[in-house]
Parts: sequence; C-alpha cells; structure tokens
Amino acid sequence: MQSYGFVGLGIMGSAMAKNLLKAGFGVTVWNRSKEKCAELAALGASVAVSPAAVAAVCPVTFGMLADPAAAEEVALGPAGICAGIGDGRGYVDMSTVDDVTSRTIAAAVTAAGGRYLEAPVSGSKKPAEDGTLVILAAGDRSLYDEALPGLERMGKKCLFLGETGSGARMKLVVNMVMGGMMAIFCEGLALGEKAGLDPAAILDVLGAGAMANPMFAIKGGLMTKGNYATNFPLKHMQKDLRLAVGLGDAVAQPLFAAAAANELFKRAREAGFGEEDFSAVFKAVRG
Amino acid sequence: MQSYGFVGLGIMGSAMAKNLLKAGFGVTVWNRSKEKCAELAALGASVAVSPAAVAAVCPVTFGMLADPAAAEEVALGPAGICAGIGDGRGYVDMSTVDDVTSRTIAAAVTAAGGRYLEAPVSGSKKPAEDGTLVILAAGDRSLYDEALPGLERMGKKCLFLGETGSGARMKLVVNMVMGGMMAIFCEGLALGEKAGLDPAAILDVLGAGAMANPMFAIKGGLMTKGNYATNFPLKHMQKDLRLAVGLGDAVAQPLFAAAAANELFKRAREAGFGEEDFSAVFKAVRG
Amino acid sequence: MQSYGFVGLGIMGSAMAKNLLKAGFGVTVWNRSKEKCAELAALGASVAVSPAAVAAVCPVTFGMLADPAAAEEVALGPAGICAGIGDGRGYVDMSTVDDVTSRTIAAAVTAAGGRYLEAPVSGSKKPAEDGTLVILAAGDRSLYDEALPGLERMGKKCLFLGETGSGARMKLVVNMVMGGMMAIFCEGLALGEKAGLDPAAILDVLGAGAMANPMFAIKGGLMTKGNYATNFPLKHMQKDLRLAVGLGDAVAQPLFAAAAANELFKRAREAGFGEEDFSAVFKAVRG
Amino acid sequence: MQSYGFVGLGIMGSAMAKNLLKAGFGVTVWNRSKEKCAELAALGASVAVSPAAVAAVCPVTFGMLADPAAAEEVALGPAGICAGIGDGRGYVDMSTVDDVTSRTIAAAVTAAGGRYLEAPVSGSKKPAEDGTLVILAAGDRSLYDEALPGLERMGKKCLFLGETGSGARMKLVVNMVMGGMMAIFCEGLALGEKAGLDPAAILDVLGAGAMANPMFAIKGGLMTKGNYATNFPLKHMQKDLRLAVGLGDAVAQPLFAAAAANELFKRAREAGFGEEDFSAVFKAVRG
Repeated sequence: MQSYGFVGLGIMGSAMAKNLLKAGFGVTVWNRSKEKCAELAALGASVAVSPAAVAAVCPVTFGMLADPAAAEEVALGPAGICAGIGDGRGYVDMSTVDDVTSRTIAAAVTAAGGRYLEAPVSGSKKPAEDGTLVILAAGDRSLYDEALPGLERMGKKCLFLGETGSGARMKLVVNMVMGGMMAIFCEGLALGEKAGLDPAAILDVLGAGAMANPMFAIKGGLMTKGNYATNFPLKHMQKDLRLAVGLGDAVAQPLFAAAAANELFKRAREAGFGEEDFSAVFKAVRG
Repeated sequence: MQSYGFVGLGIMGSAMAKNLLKAGFGVTVWNRSKEKCAELAALGASVAVSPAAVAAVCPVTFGMLADPAAAEEVALGPAGICAGIGDGRGYVDMSTVDDVTSRTIAAAVTAAGGRYLEAPVSGSKKPAEDGTLVILAAGDRSLYDEALPGLERMGKKCLFLGETGSGARMKLVVNMVMGGMMAIFCEGLALGEKAGLDPAAILDVLGAGAMANPMFAIKGGLMTKGNYATNFPLKHMQKDLRLAVGLGDAVAQPLFAAAAANELFKRAREAGFGEEDFSAVFKAVRG
Repeated sequence: MQSYGFVGLGIMGSAMAKNLLKAGFGVTVWNRSKEKCAELAALGASVAVSPAAVAAVCPVTFGMLADPAAAEEVALGPAGICAGIGDGRGYVDMSTVDDVTSRTIAAAVTAAGGRYLEAPVSGSKKPAEDGTLVILAAGDRSLYDEALPGLERMGKKCLFLGETGSGARMKLVVNMVMGGMMAIFCEGLALGEKAGLDPAAILDVLGAGAMANPMFAIKGGLMTKGNYATNFPLKHMQKDLRLAVGLGDAVAQPLFAAAAANELFKRAREAGFGEEDFSAVFKAVRG
Repeated sequence: MQSYGFVGLGIMGSAMAKNLLKAGFGVTVWNRSKEKCAELAALGASVAVSPAAVAAVCPVTFGMLADPAAAEEVALGPAGICAGIGDGRGYVDMSTVDDVTSRTIAAAVTAAGGRYLEAPVSGSKKPAEDGTLVILAAGDRSLYDEALPGLERMGKKCLFLGETGSGARMKLVVNMVMGGMMAIFCEGLALGEKAGLDPAAILDVLGAGAMANPMFAIKGGLMTKGNYATNFPLKHMQKDLRLAVGLGDAVAQPLFAAAAANELFKRAREAGFGEEDFSAVFKAVRG
C-alpha cells in the first residue's frame, strides 16, 4: 500500500492525516509544534524533522497550513518542501491560498524537480473528521491521479479542475455563492420577522421546498437563537466576497448581487462582528 | 368521510381536486369551462352550476383561481361563493392573491355568514399532482382544522400562520429568498465561466456542500444547456421581488440584496425574457 | 391686468400668492383656516368663501395643497373647485400629487367644463418666497399660456412638459437624482473621514471642480456640523425614491444606483431619522 | 524670481510647464522624447539631459508622468531624480499614482537627501492649459510652501492634506463621488426617457435647481447627442471606483451606492465602452 507525507497538523490537517492512517496508508508527518506529531505517532505515523525530510522520502506529500504566509514558509523556507523534493516526487498543497501564492509555490516546486498540485477544500472541521470534504484540485494531472487514493479518504468528492489557480478560483466562486445565499436568507428572516411571521415557520417553509439546503437548516436554527459561535469567521467571508468581486473585475463580469452582499458583510465587520460566525451578518441586516 | 367543494379546475386546481377524490373524499366541483368538470366527474365528482351552488351544499369549499381578479370574481361575483355560503360554512382560497384582495374576500365571506381561510401554496404543477405542495394557511383557525384532512392530501406540509394576510406575506418572503438565491447562483456561474471554470464542475461542487439544494441542481442543469422552458415565469418572480421590497418599505426593513436582485430581474424583463422561466435571468447576468 | 384665484395658503402657497400680489395682479384667495386669508387680505387680496366661489369668478385659479388627499378634497369635495368651475375657466394645481390623483382631478375639472394644468414645483420655502421655484407644468397648453404671467412671478423657470402626468413624473426623476447624489456624497464624506481626510477639505475640493453644486455646498457644511434641521424630510425623499424605482418597474428601466440609495434612506428611516432633513442619511451611511 | 525643474512634458505636463514660464519663472525641463523639450525651449526653458540633471540644479522639481510605472522609472531609474537630488532639494510628483508607488518614491527621495511632496491634480487638459487645476498636495510641508508660488500658477486651488498618501486618497474619494453622480444622472435620464420625458427638459430642470453642476450641464448635452468623445476614459473611472471600494474595505466603511456604480461601469466595460468617455456608462444603463 502507498505511503504519504503530511505537513501541517492543525485542526484540519490532523483530522485529515488520521483518516489516511485509518485507511491503512503509511504516513510520515511533520508539524511546527511537536505535540501534534506525538498524537499521530501514537496512531502509527512516522515523524520527520522538517518538511524537507518528509518530501525527501515520500512520493507524495500533502500540506495543510493555516494561511498563505505559513504555506509559503513551509514550502520555500529553510528545510522546507523544496529543499527535499526532487526526482518527480509530488507536493499537494491543500491550504487555502491565493492565486499568486499558489503559482509561486508551483514554480519553486517545479524548479526543484518536483510536481505540484493545489487542492483547497470546501468544508471545515466536521467534514475533515468525517472524510467528507470536497477537494478542488488543479495543477499536475499525473500527481492528482497518484494522490487520488489518499484524497478519496479525506474527501467525499474530488475534482480535477485544470491548470494551477483553478482550485483557488473555484473556491472563490463557491464561497461567493455561499455569502450571497446567506445575505438573502438574512433579509428574508428579517423581513418576515418585521412583517409578523414566526422565524421558525419561515425556516419550516424554506426547508420544505426546492430551496431546502443544509446551510439554511443548520445556521437558521442557530441564528434565530442568537447563536453565532464561529465556524467560518465573518471577516474571512467578507474577504472572499471582496476577492470574488475583484475577480469579476479582472474578467469584466458585473456582480451586482455579490457586491451588495459584500457591503452587507462589510457593514457587519464595521459593527464589530468580524470574529463571529459569518451568519452574524444577520445582526447587521436586521439593524 | 368528509366531503369538500372545489372551484377552479386549472392545471393546479384539477390536480389538487383529483388528489381529494383519490383519497376517498366526496368532491363537488365547478369550473368556468365545463370540459374540466367532465374530467373530474368521470373520476366520481359531482358537478355544480355555480360557485354559489357549491358553497351552499359543502361544509368546506376550496378555491384555486388564476389571479386576484379571477379569485375576486368567483368569490364576490353573481352566483359567486358569497351568494351561497352561510351558516358558518367555510371557503378556503388557495389562489395566490395580494393582501388587499385576501382581506376583501375575507370580509365579504364573513359578512355572508361564512368562515374564511387563505391558503396560498408553494410549489407548481408537479407537486400539485404528487400532493407535495407546501400550504401556507392563515385566517380562521377552526376552518383550518376542519379543512386539514383535505389539505394534507394536497400538500406534504401545512402550516397555520395566524391572521389573514400572513399566508400571502410568507409567500412573498419565500419567493424573495428564491429570487435572491437565483441571482447569486447566476453570478457564480457567470463568474466561474469567465474565469475558465467548467459550469458542470461548479454545479458539482455546489451540489456536494452545505449549499446543496434541489433548485440549483435542477435549474442549474437546464440553464447550462440554455433551457429556460417556463416553469415559473420571470415576470412573476420580478413582481414578487418588487412586492417584497415594497413590504420592506412598509415595515422599514432595508433589503440591499433583494433590491439588487430585483433590478437584475428587471434588466432581464427589459431584455425580453419576461415570459421565460425565472432562471433566464442568467442571460441578463452574463451580459 | 389679469387677476387670479389662489386656494391653499400654507407655507408655500402663502409665499407664492404674495408674489402675485407684489406683481400687481388681482388675487382672490381661499384657505381652510381663515387667519391665513386675513394676512393676504391685508396685502390687497379678495377673500372667497369656498374653492367653488374662487373658481366661479377667476379665469385662472392656482392651488397649492399639502398632499394628494387635500388636493382631491379641495378639487372634488362639496363647494370644491369643480362645483364652481365652467365655461373654460382654468385650474392650475401646483401641489405635489401622484399620477392617479392628477388624472382624477383632471377628468373632473374637464367634465365640469373647465381646463386643467398640473404644475408641481421643485424648490421649497426659500425659493417660494423669492419667486425662484422651478415649475413643471403639464396638461392643457392654452391654460399654461394663460397662466404663464403668474407662473413667471412664482418661479424663475417654467417648463411645459406635455400631457397630464408628465409634471409629476419629471418631479420624481429629479428627486431621484437628488437622492442618489446625496447618497454618494455621504459615502464620499464617510470614506474620506475614515481614511483620515478632513471633511472641510473634501467639501473644498468638490466645490472647486466640475461637480460643484449648491446642494453639496449648503448641505455639506451643515452635515459636517451635525445640523440636520429639516428642510425636506428624509421620509419624503425615501418615498420619492420608492416611487421612482416603481416607475422604473412600470417602464422596465433597471435602476441599480437608485435602488441602493432607496435602501440607504430606508435604513435611515428605520434608524429613526425619518422626520429629520434628508441629509440625515449621512448618519446611517456612517454607521 | 524662483526657478523650477519640470520632468514629463505630455499633454498635461507641457501645458503646466508653459504656465510656469508665462508667469516668469525660470524652468529647466526634461522629457523622454526630445521634440517636446524643443517646444518649451522656444518659450525660454533650459533643457537638461536627464531627470537627475534637473534635480541636481533646481531647488524644486515638478514631475508629471503618465502612470505609476513611468513615475517610478523617472524617480528611481538610472539617471533618475534620486540620482541627482540631495541637500534638501525637493521633488513634487504631480502624477496620479497609487499609495504604494507614492510611498516608494517618497522613501527613495528622502534616502537620497531630498524632500518629497505628492500633488496629484483634479482636472484634465483644459484646466491644465488654463491653470485652473485643483492640486491635492501631501507630504513635506516645507516643500509645499516652497513650491506654492509655482503650484498657484498651475492650479486655481491648492490644498495641503497632510502626510504622504492623503493626496492619492483624496483623489479617490472625489472620483468616487464623480462616478456615483454620473451613475444616478444616467439612471435619471434613462428613466425619464422611458417615461416619455424630453431629455433636454430634464437637463433644463436639473440645471435650474440646487443640483446644478458643470458636469451634468456639459456631459449631459453631449450624452443626449450620443457624443462620448473621450475626456476621462471609462476604464479609468471604473478602476478608481474599484480602488475606492477597496479603500472602503480597508477602513471598514460600507459603500452600497459606490459598489452599485462600480458594477454599472463594469457592465459598460464588459460591453466594450472602456476606451470611450466615462459618460458612456449611459449606454449600459439604458440597456
């Protein structure tokens, strides 16, 4: 059975690496703080001293870092992935990074003799644990095929979307739709309330028709109880809306609904809800 | 077993009355054009000469008319419902009408000694046939309870929402959310396309996450094939958005996302897509 | 010299009638409360007992009523204009009324044998006193020509715009542009402030370029001092924006900028600023 | 009398330098293509071989370059301003550049022992010729005071706005207001037209009230004749709206009206009007 490398064992990465172990793959791990490695070692993982050490021995290494800066550091820094990769070995970066960062890492990995695949995911903690992420891969097709047995243990759906950058763009499009849906959902709830309707009845009706979706059901129940415990931070949603509107600018696609949603989330950020769940935009919509 | 009246045997009403017959209820029908009555009579219905004649003999009569003008004519016109109702018999108007029409009919029915329930539905032809409509009732609670056995054969979900007008307002809120979802969905598809993503992949990703819903799945597949065969006409969706924004005005609830969606549908209407399916707003979004 | 009738001596009407007297015209007045008539009589006006009495003796009668209900009452009520008019005498209604009210009054005046002109004005108290209103006339052209000597004493600019209703529509268009300009002006001031610019400097720069206009100059100075003393109430501006967006609906003209402005004014109304000057939308924009 | 340097003799710079000569100042010029220098020499200017040569001899040098790239090249390139400046001599960059470019040049000039002032202008060819620009200066106050006699010959209004970057931000705010005013103006004209009003009458009414401004008067007349000869390119206006909305993002100021205007200009760019005058957004608004 194939063996994989895994660097970055945060909430997401740790859950994902465990799913590889559970499936019987050999896994070599590295993480900035060592306790996380110990936890995985107890489940059968090998521990390496650096990203370079992982990339030097594993045919395919997965990475899951917190942000573009961390992703760049782990890939390009001293003892980073590029210092160990070569001979066509692969690096699959599953972090959410922007286009430019993705292309920078891709170029460095290729220059070092490796292959590169970006594979950002849709879904957060729970789907990571359950192995039900949606994986948006793009870049080196041969590496995608080779990584697929592992990806399929981490996600319920894996797509190969084309050249490097397509994964990041797909994530923007999807998050933009999510932000827009949340905006109109909040306006519907707020309008209904002011017009004397019971919010629970509104959720009931929305849940019974063609618009029924898990987000309305789960978030709606929490929102009407005033529960905005952070799952996906509002400020990140607003950033994605901003980037999506900017992408619309680059390709000359007007986005009136997304732009209005962006301003609503900005209003919520201005009101101090940036660290709460993105559903807290409801408080700004209500006024 | 209870017996019901049914006036208005168009595409919707005819399917709904058949579901009552299938369930074993006695049904007395009336329709402006007589062929429709014959079809129902062949399935066991009694045929009456006027709405008044139906309302004079049935404890509860359902109505399903095409628009507010027809609903008013059948309720208040010569030989209309009000000319036959009395002694606490009930009229359940399932047509989609505005607040004012609903209250006008309610007042006339009550003045004639009857009871009134508005019960607009969410769902179109197919759910009417399958008995899976969502029924948004409001008005006389005792009449709702009495009508419920029949309503439950026509819909998979029946809600009693309070005083007359609440049903119409709920329908506006729900349709507004539907219009807003369609707007952001179209923007996502258009942005993705221009950014080099495969529309089928976008639908695939949306269908795999927390935003998955029947509308995106069904309409999305048709839209990307350029199929806008009318299910719910675009001009009606725009009218509902206009009315919802107007309701926001009446209750002082700002609706930035809904207002942007309204203008997008208006743009589509201006471009000549008013009679096509409401998903044809995609053509206006794309430009 | 010609003589005119004048009904409705509120803040606006009183100032306008005085300008007719000052110009040497004979003026016959009527007002619901009699003190106002006394004030005009002291300046040389004749006082009549009813609108009908004015319309029975004056070749041309001007009306300036507070709202559509008052305008309708004075024109159509007992002892109203229509009860006295005839033989081609004219009624020039300068009140701000909607299309429907204007057409109703027009029909009644014509049926009574009179001629009708709608002539809403742009401008408020100060221009009324100074005789510098902008007069937007529409309806009977021969009556316009006959009324012109009087109109030119009340306004600095008189336009004949065509058939009845055109005056009301022009006023909506102009007020919509005013509302939209105020919205972007507020956003510019709010953005500048948060970006560390001095509001006075922003006003200075705007006042020096191609966008310089009296509204920015006058309102801007007051707004940056927090002075929102009501000149044109915010709730009326929002109503006009709503009606303009509705007119866009009727003629299928999308109005994205006006719709966004409408929601901003709605937000301000919701926040309790409806009775303040329309420039108080600044407080809602700032957040 | 003081003497100045001037680098960059395009349409704007050439006109501005001529105004300095006309006022009697000694002027030393440099331009990439030499013919432009000859024209100025004929009017009495000295010609230098490089920006460095200008900055080495003039106490204050003005620069007016086409875009951020040219501004950076002239300031930082070989034989650029920084290669000649020192001993507290000053460089006043009047080009329109972004924050980052401005700060980069400021740092380099200061490091070379010079003083720096950014001074972007509001106004285009005609005001440059007439010496009626609005000058938005920020950076070194002592340099502003020293440059003022020259600035006052180029502009009718000069403002010192504070630290480096304030000039660029002021220009964004002002152009955002300009874009928003143009958007609502176009919507007003389009709505009026569809509602049967004469565009000339709309311009007439707008020109008579508190909203009267040179932009509506001049552009309006051209627009209604279908004349969109480029004065300020539409794509530049859309870029400024994008940057302004982005600035709103940075400082958490929601900008609903500006965002809607931005999408309208994007729509116009998508429709192929990017190189026409920014008033060509009218064609996109009209549909």
